[in-house]
Amino acid sequence: MTKLHIHGGDVYRYPHAIDFSSNCNPYGTPEGVKRAVAEAAELICHYPDVQCRKLREALAEEEGVPASGIICGNGAADLIFGLALARKPRRALLPAPTFAEYGQALRAVGCEIVHDYLKEEQGFVPQESLPDAITEDVDIVFFCNPNNPTGVLTEAEFLRKLADQCRESHALLIVDECFLDFVKEPGWYTLKPWLDVYDNLFVLKAFTKKYAMPGIRLGYGLCSNGELLAQMRAVMQPWNVSVAAQAAGIAALKEKEYVRVTMEKIAREREYLLEKLKETGVLVYGSSANYIFFKAKKGLWKECLDRGISIRDCGNYEGLGEGFYRIAVRTREENEKLLKTLREIME
Amino acid sequence: MTKLHIHGGDVYRYPHAIDFSSNCNPYGTPEGVKRAVAEAAELICHYPDVQCRKLREALAEEEGVPASGIICGNGAADLIFGLALARKPRRALLPAPTFAEYGQALRAVGCEIVHDYLKEEQGFVPQESLPDAITEDVDIVFFCNPNNPTGVLTEAEFLRKLADQCRESHALLIVDECFLDFVKEPGWYTLKPWLDVYDNLFVLKAFTKKYAMPGIRLGYGLCSNGELLAQMRAVMQPWNVSVAAQAAGIAALKEKEYVRVTMEKIAREREYLLEKLKETGVLVYGSSANYIFFKAKKGLWKECLDRGISIRDCGNYEGLGEGFYRIAVRTREENEKLLKTLREIME
Repeated sequence: MTKLHIHGGDVYRYPHAIDFSSNCNPYGTPEGVKRAVAEAAELICHYPDVQCRKLREALAEEEGVPASGIICGNGAADLIFGLALARKPRRALLPAPTFAEYGQALRAVGCEIVHDYLKEEQGFVPQESLPDAITEDVDIVFFCNPNNPTGVLTEAEFLRKLADQCRESHALLIVDECFLDFVKEPGWYTLKPWLDVYDNLFVLKAFTKKYAMPGIRLGYGLCSNGELLAQMRAVMQPWNVSVAAQAAGIAALKEKEYVRVTMEKIAREREYLLEKLKETGVLVYGSSANYIFFKAKKGLWKECLDRGISIRDCGNYEGLGEGFYRIAVRTREENEKLLKTLREIME
Repeated sequence: MTKLHIHGGDVYRYPHAIDFSSNCNPYGTPEGVKRAVAEAAELICHYPDVQCRKLREALAEEEGVPASGIICGNGAADLIFGLALARKPRRALLPAPTFAEYGQALRAVGCEIVHDYLKEEQGFVPQESLPDAITEDVDIVFFCNPNNPTGVLTEAEFLRKLADQCRESHALLIVDECFLDFVKEPGWYTLKPWLDVYDNLFVLKAFTKKYAMPGIRLGYGLCSNGELLAQMRAVMQPWNVSVAAQAAGIAALKEKEYVRVTMEKIAREREYLLEKLKETGVLVYGSSANYIFFKAKKGLWKECLDRGISIRDCGNYEGLGEGFYRIAVRTREENEKLLKTLREIME
C-alpha cells in the first residue's frame, strides 16, 4: 500500500478537510499567544536569546523546577534529535507502536533499536515485564505517557520501576509527557517530582498541543543532570529557538484560564466522542488524552478523506498494521461531523 | 582570559549597546517581512508544511535552480548540523579562522577536523596550495565566501579547483554564501552555476543577514544531489521550519527594492567606514561584505563596550588570538559613533 502521508496535520495537502489527524487543542491558539507572535515581528531583527533566559524563568515557575534544569528546543522533536546526538546510544529500547521521531532520531546516529511490542490483545498496555527488557547493553529508553498513538496512560509507579532499571543499566530514560496535560489529574502521572532523584531521567514537554501552536515550534525538556544538558547544548545550534517562539512561550504560560477552560471542554468532548464512537462499532483502545485510538475497517481514512475528514491512518507505525486510526478530540460541531461520516461509512 | 561571549549579537546581555557584533542588514527587517510574520500568528495553529512547498518554489524562481534542489532549515546552522549528521564524515578540512558552527557540527558527530590555517602575513587569503590539503581521507570541506570573520572574498575559479579536488577525493564541498549578496557583483563569485556540474557541491545561504531577520531562523541549501538531500531529510526533524519563517521567507523574496537600495547603501557605508577606520590606525584585513575585520590593541572590545558599542571580539576563533575584531557596517549615524569611540580609545 502506498503511504500518502507520514504524519498527521498536513493541512497543505488536504486544505479543505477537517483535520482530525493532528492532536492540537481544537479551541485554537490563545489570543495572547497570537498577539505575542505578531508583536515579535518587530524584534526579529535580533538574534534569539541563545539561553532562552526569560522563557526558562517563566517555565521554572510554571513547572516548579529550577531554570538550570530546563532546556528549550525548536519543538520537542529538536530535543529528541539533540538527545540522540548528545548521547550517541548504541542500543535503544522503544515500545511499539509509539511516536515515530524517537526511532528517526536514533537511526540518525546509527543506534540499534530494540522494540518492545505492545500487544493488541492486551489493549496495547505496557506489561510488567517491560523493565526486564532494559538489559545492560541498552543505553536509552523512550517512553511516551500517555502513549502516542495508542492513548494508553501509564502509572508513575510503573515508570519509576523503569527509571530504577534504567539507572541500574546506566541507561537514560526519556519520558515524553507532551500529552500529559490533557489527562485528568496529570499530577498523578508525571515523573517531574522524581527529577531530583533520577539523574538519568529526562522529561519532555511541548507547547504545541496544549496551546495549539504547532506552527511556531517550541518544546522543552526537564532534567536534573547538568552534564547531560551541557552535552546537548554542545551538539545543538545555539539559536534553535526563534524570537517569535520564545515570546509565544512566555505569553502561553500566562493563559491559565484558556488552559483551565479548554482542558475541561476537551475532557467532556472526549467522553462524548468516545461513547458515540463505540456505538458506530469501531474498537476503541486508549483515549486518556485529547485523542482516541481505534481499530476499524481497512481504508477507513481514505473513505473519510473523500468525505472531507482527515483522520490519522496509523498503518505506518512500527508495530501496527492497516486498520488502526487515531482521531483528535475536536469541537462538538466537528465531532458530530466526524461521527456522521463514520456512521455513513460503517453502514 | 574569560570569554564573556561566544557569538555576536547578544543584545540580551548588552541591551544598551549599539550592536556592531552581528552582521545583519542595518536598515532593519523589511516591512513586508514583519507584516508576514504578524499575519502568520493566525496560522500557527497548523503544523508547518514539512516540505516548505511554497517557499521552495519562490526560492527556485529567485535563485534560478529547480525547487527539487533546495532544502530549507531553521537557520543555515540547522543545515550545517543536518549535513554533518547526514554524512557522518570521519575527517574534515576547515580553513581557520572561519565560522565556528562548521566545527561544532562536525565535532557533534565525532569528526576529526584538520585546519588549514590562513596566515595573518598573507592577509588571511587562502593559498593556492589549499586544494592539496584535500587528501583521499578528507570527507568534507567547508568554505565560507566571503569568509566569516575575515571578510576575504575568493574567486569562483579558485573554488572550482576546490570542487574538482573534492570530487576526486570523494569529498563533499560546502560553500557558504550567506554573505555573498553583500558583495559587489555576487554573480562573479557564486558557485550556483556549477551546481549541475558538481554533485558533491552544496551551496549554503540564509535570509538572516540580507533581510535582517535573524530572530525568525531561516536558511537554505542548494544542491543537485538528490541522494544527499534525501539523506539530510532522513536525519532532520520534519517540522524544522516554522510557519512564521516560511511566510517571512516568501515575503522577503518580494522585497527587491529593499535589497537594491540597502545593498547600495551598505556598499557606500562600507567604503566610508573603511577609509575612516584606517585613519584611526587599526590594521584592516577583509571588508568585501557588510562587515570589516581588523587588528587593533588587545581588550579593545571591552573598552568599546564600556562606551556603549558592542563589537565582535574574534579572539575565540580557531586560528586567531587576542586583538582581532569584526564590526558590522551600520548606518552613517551609528558608524560615526563607532569611529568617534575608536578615536577616543586609540588616542
